[in-house]
Amino acid sequence: MKLYFGPLACSMATRIALHELNLEADYVEVCPSTKSTLPAGDDYLKVNPMGLVPALVTDEGQVITENLAVLEYLAELSGRMPEARSARAELRQWLAFLSTELHKAVFTPFFDRSADDHARAYALKKAPQRLSVLEARLTGREVLVGAEFSVADAFLVTILNWAQATPVDLQPYPGLNAYAERHRRRPSVAAAITHELPLYIAEKKRERARVSA
Amino acid sequence: MKLYFGPLACSMATRIALHELNLEADYVEVCPSTKSTLPAGDDYLKVNPMGLVPALVTDEGQVITENLAVLEYLAELSGRMPEARSARAELRQWLAFLSTELHKAVFTPFFDRSADDHARAYALKKAPQRLSVLEARLTGREVLVGAEFSVADAFLVTILNWAQATPVDLQPYPGLNAYAERHRRRPSVAAAITHELPLYIAEKKRERARVSA
Repeated sequence: MKLYFGPLACSMATRIALHELNLEADYVEVCPSTKSTLPAGDDYLKVNPMGLVPALVTDEGQVITENLAVLEYLAELSGRMPEARSARAELRQWLAFLSTELHKAVFTPFFDRSADDHARAYALKKAPQRLSVLEARLTGREVLVGAEFSVADAFLVTILNWAQATPVDLQPYPGLNAYAERHRRRPSVAAAITHELPLYIAEKKRERARVSA
Repeated sequence: MKLYFGPLACSMATRIALHELNLEADYVEVCPSTKSTLPAGDDYLKVNPMGLVPALVTDEGQVITENLAVLEYLAELSGRMPEARSARAELRQWLAFLSTELHKAVFTPFFDRSADDHARAYALKKAPQRLSVLEARLTGREVLVGAEFSVADAFLVTILNWAQATPVDLQPYPGLNAYAERHRRRPSVAAAITHELPLYIAEKKRERARVSA
């Protein structure tokens, strides 16, 4: 398999999932500004016309885009989707909530240079209700769904990691905060952040150089 | 089963899917402003703290929220999820694209009274790239994924129906436009719109009365 990723982007959830599921993959970095691969400079828009990560190329050559589709594919591939239909529905409900209500509605405008302060203020207004839903869910729970760390947790820890770089404040949510702190020490998560943080910093440096050029 | 819905909201995709799959359900209307059920006046926030539709109550009493989870539950329940893992991934990829990139990124601010003109302008800027992806996909295709009308089509026709009430212009996209026109005549879709449009108009009247009161 091959994973197209951006440093600390939502594709980090796929990296964490691959690690948790003991699946091997080649990792290809995509520059979020130029939409070309690093270091080869190939046009990523030919892989995903939206230019978004992750994109997973399966061993059969299928390109799967969209985080939810990629995460669920990996869970299925490794036999980790719940047996019961009701449990699968619950897992998907939380994956969809994270993707639409937290990632897109709250965080996306803070990482999108076409967003202005108004778009960001609108997004930030959405945060408390959504974080409160998570706080209620996670209080007294180790993981978001089921009994074990799942692809939903891989996604949530990836999103919560973004709070540091935005005005989204997790401090009023002790359950959520404890969850984030606890899972940040998990080997798969710690390894992903340790690997991608330097790449993220390098990307920001390149971006500043491009802007000032 | 019981479906909590809002007139012409994304829960219409569930109504269409239930019709297509020959599944029976009780339908409970939710007022998007007061978040109470009609006509009973029950507090919908007790069903879904986010106040969003759809919510599906299964025959076993499980409450499933989030459109993607509800649609996939119904497809599984009726044996309509593709057999092949690769085909399931493709279906989910399009469902996720519709949910995050089209519904949330482009349309949500136009139906959210907390959105100002700036938030709407930001959303509208997102439309051409996303509609172009759909145009490329649908040119020469009858349906979005696979060979038959699926839950992904139920979702897409529901979203495209919103274009009329927003500045999102489908005219530059002939393939998408033809797709929307064609499926609007499909019995399940026509029946859903015929049923929900008067409820939508009634809701708008109630809203105006509340605002002017």
